[in-house]
Amino acid sequence: MFDKSHEDIGNAIHQAQIEALGIPADDRFQIFQPHDAGELKFDAGYNGVDRRSLLVIRVTAVHMYPVATKRVFFQAVVDKLAPLGIRAQDVLISLTENGFEDWYAGKI
Amino acid sequence: MFDKSHEDIGNAIHQAQIEALGIPADDRFQIFQPHDAGELKFDAGYNGVDRRSLLVIRVTAVHMYPVATKRVFFQAVVDKLAPLGIRAQDVLISLTENGFEDWYAGKI
Amino acid sequence: MFDKSHEDIGNAIHQAQIEALGIPADDRFQIFQPHDAGELKFDAGYNGVDRRSLLVIRVTAVHMYPVATKRVFFQAVVDKLAPLGIRAQDVLISLTENGFEDWYAGKI
Repeated sequence: MFDKSHEDIGNAIHQAQIEALGIPADDRFQIFQPHDAGELKFDAGYNGVDRRSLLVIRVTAVHMYPVATKRVFFQAVVDKLAPLGIRAQDVLISLTENGFEDWYAGKI
Repeated sequence: MFDKSHEDIGNAIHQAQIEALGIPADDRFQIFQPHDAGELKFDAGYNGVDRRSLLVIRVTAVHMYPVATKRVFFQAVVDKLAPLGIRAQDVLISLTENGFEDWYAGKI
Repeated sequence: MFDKSHEDIGNAIHQAQIEALGIPADDRFQIFQPHDAGELKFDAGYNGVDRRSLLVIRVTAVHMYPVATKRVFFQAVVDKLAPLGIRAQDVLISLTENGFEDWYAGKI
């Protein structure tokens, strides 16, 4: 499933960032990492959900979004992944923050 | 070595998290990433230890553990990896913290 | 290109860390992750640069460097990658910080 919709998954997550976080449409840097069977280990019932698979989304972003905005973003991600056949229950998102001064994107 | 004890390494680290950090037993999300020769570059003597190999453990956790608890956790990890033949000297752990609001685990 | 200069890229980044951040020469832990075509998704024009490829450098370091030092580090990285044929425009650096107490390097 992951291999087939490689491009679609990237587009969905990027679109959620544009709509929910308000980032520029051309601010896109995404790394996809396929995994062999068994490399993703997870509990099928944690947090009271029925988990069958796992798509891990790790986001590094500048510290500036309120908690409410983060929730809107998470919801937007799973809403846009749903049409691809990816269940909300199978998504894990982890956000890590840094500062504006912690990025170099092609020039100082 | 890494391939053989894939599952065992995951169990050891998870058990250390349960015992030292007090996380729920079903709060388990682990990503394993095998590497080809040369992809892990490290100094064999840094920090005054005799390093022969390298197992990198990167943990992302909510910011809430005191320094002393982190040390207990690190010690628990290497104690539980030792029976698998993994030397404490060959372990590198890096902890990065975020907030409760930075996680989505299957539902809002 | 990435495969050929695997070792050179690592040396260049490490040397930049020594010179710009002042880290000890033996404090070296680097993970290289090759990617198949399409796994790195990026916008070719973001930030007003002409991007043709992408080398993503993710650094986790203890929180202690002033903003000016970070800029010097970024510049040092691209300056040392240039002789390898890696264009500054094609480099993305993302720095994430933690504390001294968040590292285990072979011993407590």
